[in-house]
Amino acid sequence: VSTNVAVLGAGNWGVTLAHLAAVNGANVRLYTRDREQAHEIETTHTSERAVAGLVLAPGVRATVDLRDAMDGAELVVFVVPSQSFRGLARAAGEHLLPEQLVLHATKGLELGSHARMSTILQEETCARQIGVLAGPNIAAEIASGKVAGTTVASAFPHVFEVGRRVLASRRLAVLPGTDVLGVELCSAFKNVVAVAAGMASQMGIGENAKALLVTRGMSDIARLALALGAQRATFHGLAGIGDLLVTCASEKSRNHRLGVAIARGEPLRDALEALGMVAEGAYASLAARDLARARKVDVPVLDRVHRVLYEGLAPERALEELMSLEPAPSR
Amino acid sequence: VSTNVAVLGAGNWGVTLAHLAAVNGANVRLYTRDREQAHEIETTHTSERAVAGLVLAPGVRATVDLRDAMDGAELVVFVVPSQSFRGLARAAGEHLLPEQLVLHATKGLELGSHARMSTILQEETCARQIGVLAGPNIAAEIASGKVAGTTVASAFPHVFEVGRRVLASRRLAVLPGTDVLGVELCSAFKNVVAVAAGMASQMGIGENAKALLVTRGMSDIARLALALGAQRATFHGLAGIGDLLVTCASEKSRNHRLGVAIARGEPLRDALEALGMVAEGAYASLAARDLARARKVDVPVLDRVHRVLYEGLAPERALEELMSLEPAPSR
Repeated sequence: VSTNVAVLGAGNWGVTLAHLAAVNGANVRLYTRDREQAHEIETTHTSERAVAGLVLAPGVRATVDLRDAMDGAELVVFVVPSQSFRGLARAAGEHLLPEQLVLHATKGLELGSHARMSTILQEETCARQIGVLAGPNIAAEIASGKVAGTTVASAFPHVFEVGRRVLASRRLAVLPGTDVLGVELCSAFKNVVAVAAGMASQMGIGENAKALLVTRGMSDIARLALALGAQRATFHGLAGIGDLLVTCASEKSRNHRLGVAIARGEPLRDALEALGMVAEGAYASLAARDLARARKVDVPVLDRVHRVLYEGLAPERALEELMSLEPAPSR
Repeated sequence: VSTNVAVLGAGNWGVTLAHLAAVNGANVRLYTRDREQAHEIETTHTSERAVAGLVLAPGVRATVDLRDAMDGAELVVFVVPSQSFRGLARAAGEHLLPEQLVLHATKGLELGSHARMSTILQEETCARQIGVLAGPNIAAEIASGKVAGTTVASAFPHVFEVGRRVLASRRLAVLPGTDVLGVELCSAFKNVVAVAAGMASQMGIGENAKALLVTRGMSDIARLALALGAQRATFHGLAGIGDLLVTCASEKSRNHRLGVAIARGEPLRDALEALGMVAEGAYASLAARDLARARKVDVPVLDRVHRVLYEGLAPERALEELMSLEPAPSR
């Protein structure tokens, strides 16, 4: 019997996940607000803007009707930017039934509240069995058939089992986890370090210095996430070090590109606009700053990124401070 | 008053360290067995084979006389490949005085005994105040004046203090550590993961898969080093994650290049010969295999590298096994 799956959000990762599930035999309804995109998918089984060149498996059907997308789905997967998440969750909450399993694949925290996405799901829907999917997953690579690994973390083993059944293949390893909070925090904060790595790349400081910077950034993430309740093993896993590795290595990552633009001297607003898409790191750095302050955790790299993005600190000065022997000034 | 420093070994890292110390005002005697190299340094203040383009600071004097190199040195720095280390340590032991401070910058373990370099120093010399220098340090970058950070770990704070005084500058941060064993093990084992990363690069498996592989390799290193007595913080630092980041990112690293050659199908012996220099990862994988077996630590990535290098396992098969969901077979 085929599994019915709803994928809510049709960016590159949502479209890719919908395709993978359909390849595995699921009936997938892919929700998008964009009528043109829905029409393109329904008529040509492609979505060139989301994933150029990918021909979607026949099991993917697009819809602009949220209720239609979710109706009868055993698994509902949320894949939208963090700042659109609550709106979608609230709308989906009108239809979601408590027996439906929910996964999300959003790497960020809500602005202002610093809420995790699983918290938003709990607040806005009756979903109980919630999980998060995260890892070193460049969507374009996976869509093109390259192998990868990802994590599905949930307090409910059933969520992992269904997630694996729907997504795992000889090309995608789906590994289990239970630390939802840890995965969500590591996934969000790593984007801030990716911005720092992008700045470093643009400034041509070399591989040694970039490694020092990323190592210190990793320590920041570990300290802050642990202080907020994450498990250490999560930091060591695919959603922690793994995702950070790929985000910092890939010059294509939007957060990396944001760092490059900022180091070139572009104002944040212009840089974000030019990217034409969401750079989660710019939001996550606000959350990281506030959370680190509240918990009195020293996060020199995350802090410098925040100050460069929002307080006019020169990228050169930030890097000098991070490279120096001196401990970070207390705040 | 200038510090007298002996640097034993004139490869690219030894020459670079000698130069840095001389820039900082030390009187440096650089020991090499190669009379031509010593002559080149003495007459032109260059060593093109070791560090092309670098003009050495005037304070560097080369010598082929080990006793002359060490006589009156406050700090003696060993920088030779792991398999030449005991021979040099034994010869140096004829002259070394117990009050002389000793640092080494060798990233490997002795074949057969799996001895760490600091252990060899204790066995072959009367040195007591011993430290290790390690981190994400591509010598060519540092020689060209790019910024970097490194670690000096020692049970003796005085070793760190002198090491920092001699080497630290606005371009090189020297950070303290106390976990000599942890630094030595992480530095050795990371070369094995670098070989795996090289294989992955050559096979074109993509950034996602490479991140998965390196993440698992990092976990192997952490598990094995912790089982052997390392401190967790060391793994999180410059000599752990930091060095691994730069080794895996840099396609120029000799261990990465060894992995590329092996994945191309070259036999180990030919690949090592073609490299024309020591790839410590080939040796360290033997030590990792034995030590992991003895401690019953599961190290799937380190184990696969060993089997590819020495037991004829096909690189493609090794990667398939590492990417799969299945746990590593018990040995």
